[in-house]
Amino acid sequence: MADQFPLSKDHGLKMFFKSSSDGDTRQLKSILEAKLVKDVNVRDHQGWTALMLAARNGHSEIVVLLLEHGADVSLINKSGQTAFQIAEFWNHEECCKVLDPNKNGPSKILPAKEVVNFFGNYPLDRQALRRTDQSWLEAAQKNPTTKYILLSKQNAYTLPPSADNRKYSLCTYRYSQVSHLLENMSESSNQLPIVLLGSELQRNKITDTKDEDLHQSSTDVEGCVWFAIDVTTACSDEIEKLNPGAELLGSNLISLMGFDEGQAGILAQAISILSWHDRYKFCPTCGSSTVMEEAGYKRKCENEECRSLRGVHNTSYPRLDPVAIMLVIHPDGDKCLLGRKKMFPKGMYSCLAGFMEPGESIEDAVRREVKEESGIDVGLVRYHSSQPWPMPSQVMIGCHAWATSTSIVIDENELQDAKWFSRQDVFEAVTQGHRGYTERGGTGIFVPPRQAIAHQLIKTWATTSAHL
Amino acid sequence: MADQFPLSKDHGLKMFFKSSSDGDTRQLKSILEAKLVKDVNVRDHQGWTALMLAARNGHSEIVVLLLEHGADVSLINKSGQTAFQIAEFWNHEECCKVLDPNKNGPSKILPAKEVVNFFGNYPLDRQALRRTDQSWLEAAQKNPTTKYILLSKQNAYTLPPSADNRKYSLCTYRYSQVSHLLENMSESSNQLPIVLLGSELQRNKITDTKDEDLHQSSTDVEGCVWFAIDVTTACSDEIEKLNPGAELLGSNLISLMGFDEGQAGILAQAISILSWHDRYKFCPTCGSSTVMEEAGYKRKCENEECRSLRGVHNTSYPRLDPVAIMLVIHPDGDKCLLGRKKMFPKGMYSCLAGFMEPGESIEDAVRREVKEESGIDVGLVRYHSSQPWPMPSQVMIGCHAWATSTSIVIDENELQDAKWFSRQDVFEAVTQGHRGYTERGGTGIFVPPRQAIAHQLIKTWATTSAHL
Repeated sequence: MADQFPLSKDHGLKMFFKSSSDGDTRQLKSILEAKLVKDVNVRDHQGWTALMLAARNGHSEIVVLLLEHGADVSLINKSGQTAFQIAEFWNHEECCKVLDPNKNGPSKILPAKEVVNFFGNYPLDRQALRRTDQSWLEAAQKNPTTKYILLSKQNAYTLPPSADNRKYSLCTYRYSQVSHLLENMSESSNQLPIVLLGSELQRNKITDTKDEDLHQSSTDVEGCVWFAIDVTTACSDEIEKLNPGAELLGSNLISLMGFDEGQAGILAQAISILSWHDRYKFCPTCGSSTVMEEAGYKRKCENEECRSLRGVHNTSYPRLDPVAIMLVIHPDGDKCLLGRKKMFPKGMYSCLAGFMEPGESIEDAVRREVKEESGIDVGLVRYHSSQPWPMPSQVMIGCHAWATSTSIVIDENELQDAKWFSRQDVFEAVTQGHRGYTERGGTGIFVPPRQAIAHQLIKTWATTSAHL
Repeated sequence: MADQFPLSKDHGLKMFFKSSSDGDTRQLKSILEAKLVKDVNVRDHQGWTALMLAARNGHSEIVVLLLEHGADVSLINKSGQTAFQIAEFWNHEECCKVLDPNKNGPSKILPAKEVVNFFGNYPLDRQALRRTDQSWLEAAQKNPTTKYILLSKQNAYTLPPSADNRKYSLCTYRYSQVSHLLENMSESSNQLPIVLLGSELQRNKITDTKDEDLHQSSTDVEGCVWFAIDVTTACSDEIEKLNPGAELLGSNLISLMGFDEGQAGILAQAISILSWHDRYKFCPTCGSSTVMEEAGYKRKCENEECRSLRGVHNTSYPRLDPVAIMLVIHPDGDKCLLGRKKMFPKGMYSCLAGFMEPGESIEDAVRREVKEESGIDVGLVRYHSSQPWPMPSQVMIGCHAWATSTSIVIDENELQDAKWFSRQDVFEAVTQGHRGYTERGGTGIFVPPRQAIAHQLIKTWATTSAHL
């Protein structure tokens, strides 16, 4: 969800809400084209978006225009209403039609637009074709605009939240600061792993006030290049001297979720690749040592006789584990299945999930996991969205799954509990979060925060109903 | 596509077509309930399905009934028409509505029902919870109803096509035939890898005429259990004596595609897991040797000091590589992008595809691959279906992708050519296959056969249009 804007300070924003509410298509178009509003999903003090205001007053043309500019149909105001529910309450048929494109069947709970999850917003061009271009890589490493991020044991050096950005952000270093680390690298097994992350896309330039001058003087048409270095074996005192304000951010879930949304994707990629280098130092086919190649995206076996050197061997490339995660919906359509593991905080319930297995489709993986963990049979499965998950290197594949049975038998090795919850209870859990749970004196449940794909799967289902 | 039935021999089938064509709902219901027809998508001599006959005559109630029983909306008759196109031509509005639930926007080319691809139809319950149950595993191995399949270098011992099944099928062996192989197994590194595949589901009993008696006398309530053994290091003469009719089927694409659809999923799982054991004999974290555990679904490092023994390490579990595969659709909606690699047979074009990378969402992987290989920018991405791909162990994640640019610049390391093709050309390529290409004297193109998810992605797009 977007942060609230300071209304009185922003004339453009006021106009944005007013033109949506009044149905002034021409003015709204010019506001959007001039990019006077940073975020089309910005809220007013009642939690209303421009989309909700347009839906309230039946301006279907405005609704269409806002949707084209990325307005999120799943957001709710402080009264818990979506734009569709508002349009329906006020009986604006045309708006209802636009906001609820699929009234029939299960697809009505699927998002109309692509969902981008936390860690999934990657602001760099990965420059995969440059990974074998040694001279480009060397020039890029030495370029004064190049940014380095440093990780130790998969924990990144980060800058703590500041007044203007209440999130953790990556601490970046210049070549002049890290060149002594790079110079010590060699083909030996003691080399510090260095990984090319990519270069800033023109449209996604990551602003960094201190580096502004450098940016503007740069003649590098491909934009500023980013690298990640694993400094686990370097002297930590020395690293800390480079920027005394930086601190190591743990690579656990709680820490990572406090990370700046625009940079979380970079951190996810750095953690995943560096953790692969950490866990895959030896050739699994022959047991020999391996060396890093292709800017960190390959490890080659040093034994010249090894089979892994012939053909394309997946032993040489980064490992990525697909995980199926699913919200199971009750046959009556108005309850969903949530489970909890022992390690969850008290009161938290979430989606079921599990690693996919070789020889399995995504849909079958969903059915198997649900059956194994809860005893529930699943029929139809529909893909919702996906999310990189750097703990250490998964891709979460999120689905909605329609149950064909209701009697729960949990696998006690996996779950402590699993239950059917009513839409009303789940709606409260999604909208009120952990704070709501505490305020209720710890009754009911809460669900993972919005950064988790589980939250998005649950929210899509819980908030897309005309009968709340 | 379903095979053609010998019409004259089958009264039930005649009634099936007639009741669909006449709109006799009561009769059709009783035919379907009595399972008088094996395959709801069976064709008549003109390639018409029951769904098409019902659509032709405007029987929307019959259309709904057939869809509920798995009728495939994407099939086309010998004139290249889908049921929807037939209904539209004859102006049966209600049928059109049912057959084309999403007329607006990109979702109209997505399947209404879940797509099950080749290799994706898995007829066994994987019994994952039994993998640590040593006494169950031992009893299952010795059970006389248990079926063993044998692979050497990931090639399976198979039975060649027969008169009643024109496909390759797995050669299965009984405990009495393989017990001497199993007895020679030990905890040593020479052990033959044996992997639990699962047990037959009641609803999916795999018929095997010779074993019928055994089946009926079995008291094993969980159904017949299947195992795969890698006999690469065993004496091949001895194995061949066990069933002189069996032959080794190569694990290359062409061979695998001739495999029985109902068993292809079992073969895919066996190849993937056994190939993992073959490539991952050593611990990638410390280089020590590893041993198989959990019925073939884990490898444990033998070095007691190794980090991989603490916590859940993905180094210990089978590797599965997610691949994004996509059909790119031209901004004008009526052309699609296909490419060819040098190694493709002359005239074949297919979807672009590539391995996903750590830190990437499925949608971003699609956009990156398309940009890298063809220079085309992609906006919206929609998931279509997935497919296990045992060469050696991928999961193909199929998507439709909407281009936002049109100018092609290919990556010559990956592709020999990539072009925009008109819907009409692609339609011919899909419906006429390789034979049509030969008959045209090698002009135009052909696309991969229906067993490839690329074919399904292309077919869904090419056949779902009202304007052919």
